[in-house]
Amino acid sequence: MLPGVGVFGTGSTARVLVPLLQAEGFEVHALWGRSEEEACCLAKELGIPFHTSRSDDVLLHQDVDLVCIYIPPSMTKQIAVKALGIGKNVVCEKAATAVDSFKMVTAARYYPQLLSIMGNTLRFLPAFVAMRQRLLEGYIGEIQVCDVRVYGPSLLDQSYGWTCEELMGGGGLHTVGSAIIDLLSYLTGARAHRVHGLLRTFVQQNSLIRGIRRVTSDDFCFFQMLMGGSGSAGVCCTVTLNFNMPGSFVHEVMVVGSTGRLTVRGTELFGQRNGSKDEELLLGDNGWVGPEVKAMPLPHLQGLSSMVKALRQSFQAHEERRSWARGPVAMAPTFEDGLYVQTVVEAVKQSSSSGEWVCVEIMSQEPDPNHNLCEALQRNKN
Amino acid sequence: MLPGVGVFGTGSTARVLVPLLQAEGFEVHALWGRSEEEACCLAKELGIPFHTSRSDDVLLHQDVDLVCIYIPPSMTKQIAVKALGIGKNVVCEKAATAVDSFKMVTAARYYPQLLSIMGNTLRFLPAFVAMRQRLLEGYIGEIQVCDVRVYGPSLLDQSYGWTCEELMGGGGLHTVGSAIIDLLSYLTGARAHRVHGLLRTFVQQNSLIRGIRRVTSDDFCFFQMLMGGSGSAGVCCTVTLNFNMPGSFVHEVMVVGSTGRLTVRGTELFGQRNGSKDEELLLGDNGWVGPEVKAMPLPHLQGLSSMVKALRQSFQAHEERRSWARGPVAMAPTFEDGLYVQTVVEAVKQSSSSGEWVCVEIMSQEPDPNHNLCEALQRNKN
Repeated sequence: MLPGVGVFGTGSTARVLVPLLQAEGFEVHALWGRSEEEACCLAKELGIPFHTSRSDDVLLHQDVDLVCIYIPPSMTKQIAVKALGIGKNVVCEKAATAVDSFKMVTAARYYPQLLSIMGNTLRFLPAFVAMRQRLLEGYIGEIQVCDVRVYGPSLLDQSYGWTCEELMGGGGLHTVGSAIIDLLSYLTGARAHRVHGLLRTFVQQNSLIRGIRRVTSDDFCFFQMLMGGSGSAGVCCTVTLNFNMPGSFVHEVMVVGSTGRLTVRGTELFGQRNGSKDEELLLGDNGWVGPEVKAMPLPHLQGLSSMVKALRQSFQAHEERRSWARGPVAMAPTFEDGLYVQTVVEAVKQSSSSGEWVCVEIMSQEPDPNHNLCEALQRNKN
Repeated sequence: MLPGVGVFGTGSTARVLVPLLQAEGFEVHALWGRSEEEACCLAKELGIPFHTSRSDDVLLHQDVDLVCIYIPPSMTKQIAVKALGIGKNVVCEKAATAVDSFKMVTAARYYPQLLSIMGNTLRFLPAFVAMRQRLLEGYIGEIQVCDVRVYGPSLLDQSYGWTCEELMGGGGLHTVGSAIIDLLSYLTGARAHRVHGLLRTFVQQNSLIRGIRRVTSDDFCFFQMLMGGSGSAGVCCTVTLNFNMPGSFVHEVMVVGSTGRLTVRGTELFGQRNGSKDEELLLGDNGWVGPEVKAMPLPHLQGLSSMVKALRQSFQAHEERRSWARGPVAMAPTFEDGLYVQTVVEAVKQSSSSGEWVCVEIMSQEPDPNHNLCEALQRNKN
């Protein structure tokens, strides 16, 4: 039986997600927005019976068993942790910091019977599912290089907000790079152990953001990840994100191996073995029939749609509306994956400012909030 | 009047160059090969009356006024410097080291009346000439990012040789990266001041290179260059070279600016301004009618062809067969450009081994060959 859903957020993803959920038979009972007005407006538009600007009203709503959190990164942790504490299943977007991600991991570990997955994913896109399958089957031999490029128009909101602020989780690296980092670890089956990066904000002001306000989040980001073992034999990943290219959208993921390569362009999978002269189409575009969304590139849109389908299968398997089967969502990124991704994002930022390669070290215990204070006291003592 | 030409080299470039020279009306009088046999064989094939394996026989040949040097990088400096000393005009490929390049610069400065240009160039390719023109006209506004990728099959020769040896000037960075580094400084009008790179040799042995022999030259190279001023406002260039992709050839140079972008794919130029929805073809492929050469990608082949045409125009302008006009070859890379390129190549290699950003510092005086000795003596004294 499908669980009742509560949705947090009124942004472009929430706006897409709700119809996708409804199309799969989920009932969306409650919507939370930052202001009563935003919530009311979108609830009316999407036919959601209840709306609120108080998070508890959704979390404690008796018909809500699954909470989908698509809100600014800085607010995600608080809602996600609370939702798990109340016993709700959670699908959510990334948090703003590794510390927040770690707190989410702790909560998820504490409630292993609850579903807790990262919901902004490319893993579910059929082209990437097929790519991974081919990789496992040895289509390209040993993986050598992954080369990713995403080019598109500006990610900034119309008005000044978190998308402009690096510290609030804005920018190409955080928004789009996260999904790529997750995808590459899914495809290669390995994690980055060292990263190097360069971030730039080419457009610091525009017609809407001006005066004393400046954009601090990156609109160009380029990073490399060395995956797997610490030897030189590991996989090299290079990722180029450029969001100063209005009018175009390029989303290309290429994996090069010892005997061939696989490329996903947009939502299609192509392959070429070293012997053959031409590329072959391995998985075509199955013709997207859902809504076209200007703000969301097709790979993300279709990935989201496939994830919702997987959620349906996961819950459908059980009678009880809070129970779910692990199988259909087994490939979804867990909160642990979310922590890994966030750690890589922060390592890339650190590399960009220091100019050096940075080791990816996953947090294993929460940093002491009094650490800085202690250090200051220590210094004073000497 | 066109000068008589002497050609050094029997490799794929020399094999292409001679017919191009002949087609433009140059008479190729002499050919040098490393062995008498190689020289004899190719001379017969290309209809060159004289061949030798002794360099002086070409350099001192009375009908030779222009010397074209397309030989392994480690031998280039010696021939080029000697040719200038004897009073011959020189077109040559890159040297193996910055020290060699510096010696060539010194020689070129000493004989300013002689032509001395780097002959492995993409600058002459009509698509890049047109791209530069558009950049100067402000088609894309302020340049932000250059993104280059070259993918192709292995660069290794059939048998073990300099192409396998990093120290001999082999590898993707040295062979193909050089031309890209030169091109980007031509397009942006700026030079790299800091670089970061990563080199890999994924294929260290193959069916022909085995046993105790290993390839040390890179088959994957990825580097970034920060161009122009030292502030954060400069142009970022990212270059990806991958020569583990048999059966494909990708040669793409994209320049992204504040109001649009320009892309050369293969030999065609495309542009897109920020306002417009689609890319426009700015310069199509004019239909290459020369020979198809398997070992040489079309952009390099056409670039070489255009350079030979420019050489013809340069020499044709004068009656005396050693005199030449600066105009037609003004855009050719000088030996100083060659030194810059070589310096960047070495900085990228250094960065790859240290993992750090490396400043590009052009040599201004020859390093003292006794430097190490002096240091050793110094140490012993203390």
